[in-house]
Amino acid sequence: MIPKTHRRVVLARRPPAEVAEGDFRVEEVPVPEPGPREVLVRVVYMSLDPYMRGRMRDAASYAAPVGIGEVMTGGTVGEVVKSNHPGFKVGGIVEDRLGWQEYAIGPRPAMRKVDASLAPISTANGVLGMPGMTAYFGLFDVGQPKAGETVVVSAASGAVGQIVGQLAKIAGCRAVGIAGGSKKCAFVKDTLGFDACIDYKAEKDLAAAVKAACPNGVDVYFDNVGGVVSDAVFLNLNSWARVALCGSISQYNTTEPGPRLLGAFVGKRVTMRGFIVWDFNGKYEPARRQMGEWVRSGRVKYKEDIVEGIENAPRAFVGLLRGDNFGKLQVKLGPDPGAR
Amino acid sequence: MIPKTHRRVVLARRPPAEVAEGDFRVEEVPVPEPGPREVLVRVVYMSLDPYMRGRMRDAASYAAPVGIGEVMTGGTVGEVVKSNHPGFKVGGIVEDRLGWQEYAIGPRPAMRKVDASLAPISTANGVLGMPGMTAYFGLFDVGQPKAGETVVVSAASGAVGQIVGQLAKIAGCRAVGIAGGSKKCAFVKDTLGFDACIDYKAEKDLAAAVKAACPNGVDVYFDNVGGVVSDAVFLNLNSWARVALCGSISQYNTTEPGPRLLGAFVGKRVTMRGFIVWDFNGKYEPARRQMGEWVRSGRVKYKEDIVEGIENAPRAFVGLLRGDNFGKLQVKLGPDPGAR
Repeated sequence: MIPKTHRRVVLARRPPAEVAEGDFRVEEVPVPEPGPREVLVRVVYMSLDPYMRGRMRDAASYAAPVGIGEVMTGGTVGEVVKSNHPGFKVGGIVEDRLGWQEYAIGPRPAMRKVDASLAPISTANGVLGMPGMTAYFGLFDVGQPKAGETVVVSAASGAVGQIVGQLAKIAGCRAVGIAGGSKKCAFVKDTLGFDACIDYKAEKDLAAAVKAACPNGVDVYFDNVGGVVSDAVFLNLNSWARVALCGSISQYNTTEPGPRLLGAFVGKRVTMRGFIVWDFNGKYEPARRQMGEWVRSGRVKYKEDIVEGIENAPRAFVGLLRGDNFGKLQVKLGPDPGAR
Repeated sequence: MIPKTHRRVVLARRPPAEVAEGDFRVEEVPVPEPGPREVLVRVVYMSLDPYMRGRMRDAASYAAPVGIGEVMTGGTVGEVVKSNHPGFKVGGIVEDRLGWQEYAIGPRPAMRKVDASLAPISTANGVLGMPGMTAYFGLFDVGQPKAGETVVVSAASGAVGQIVGQLAKIAGCRAVGIAGGSKKCAFVKDTLGFDACIDYKAEKDLAAAVKAACPNGVDVYFDNVGGVVSDAVFLNLNSWARVALCGSISQYNTTEPGPRLLGAFVGKRVTMRGFIVWDFNGKYEPARRQMGEWVRSGRVKYKEDIVEGIENAPRAFVGLLRGDNFGKLQVKLGPDPGAR
């Protein structure tokens, strides 16, 4: 039964610094009616990702900001519940960027059918979706690891980091994670099979900890966090190291200065490269097939952190920016038809 | 007439921070006698370059440090005055890394004959030598400028910077320099033909000055200095910008922190790459031929700052690190046979 109204989360105000729950507002609005060649999607899983912090800022970026009063942007997996589009049947599972809302009109240009028989549908927001593709292309295309090298990844238990280290192992590398807290580190090492994981909250001398965990130095650094964690890795880079700049979550809410470490990049011939996953969108399908095989064979594991109810999305997002989540954060908005 | 003794400059102590003249010592020692397959070279021009600051440090680097009491390292152009080597005749001009001394035994593996009929022999330490090759490969191979783009270079009147901007013009780019003082800036614009030059000592808001000089943003930044000058450029990088990290002279004597600006490199897909000129040594000869043509046709101009007498080398080097030189700094140790 499709209800008359549904809930959505809009941006109430732009956070001056740290994001707070009050920067968002939950609204109840009528469920829209799909027009010709449109579908109505019931969102099942709503992805929460660090990049959304950037969309809350009214600044030039690679993507437009969310306007005040507009629905927060974001990836979603859902079920088609009404269809006027010949390509999408009622009951079909789709992935699209429909934002923080329980129901939405599609398709946007990138709406994609999800085969619920291959993997849990939530993975379309995770290991087989944007975060998985980010890990895949950021590591293989930007980081270019060679067998025997050492790969370090920050936010190692997060949506992207957990995949990066496992892909580094597949590539024959030493995989070293950096994460916050002993529970996350134990998971990264024992369950995901990284060679080592550094608890950045427990280490007093982070650079020394990186050195100890990387006896042959660091060849590839996949950076999700920036700030002091990255400083510690930068001090341990080998000559010809590659740094894949994926995000800088530690810096989204701060303007604290840091040491200047780029000078050493000259003599070490470090290459540092920022990237966005969609730079690689022409290559998603073969990568997704490969990742799907690794997931089904158990070679790549994944951990999700699922919060229930759209009203909890703002709190969960604030926690994400603090590192409170453990695994790929998603909000489940209703029953999962893939799990029937 | 070859004298019995000659002078050389050795490293007397490692500077704790800023380099001082007293960190060096001028010694008078016997002129050595060349052995079998060796030559004795009278050094005519001794190159002084910022990278030498790194050699004074007892730290792992891409090159070994100079030991205490050892002759300072460096590029030289000189005249063969004795020869037991069939490949090098007395009276021939050679370029080699013979260090801060008036006479030296060669050849080292890289000794190269210089054709004094093609250009003043001092250029073998400058536009047709290491600094010229640094500019050439750093701009073309690392920076990869495309016609119509904007190239910014720091230390724009220096040995490398002065060439970078002229090569950028040849590549069809807008060339913007950053230099210290109105005299240097006028030279960079009026004589070298850069489109604009920013006086970093005069500007209160350096980022705004870069923005004004680069109305279409910055596509390539050739960085010789690091620090606050680079910060200002980083804030004006376009998406897909390339940063060629060549040196960081502003940072050699300081450990002051700075703003963290790498976060913006993600969304802008900036590529930053450190390089050393000899990474390209397999390609020097065609590049040197091309540069030689441009120099002879007047398309590439160069400015040298020549100090006389080895006893003045320490003071000149200290000044180089402060930006006191105006053009490619060299020390002339004796008569120039190419200028006879």
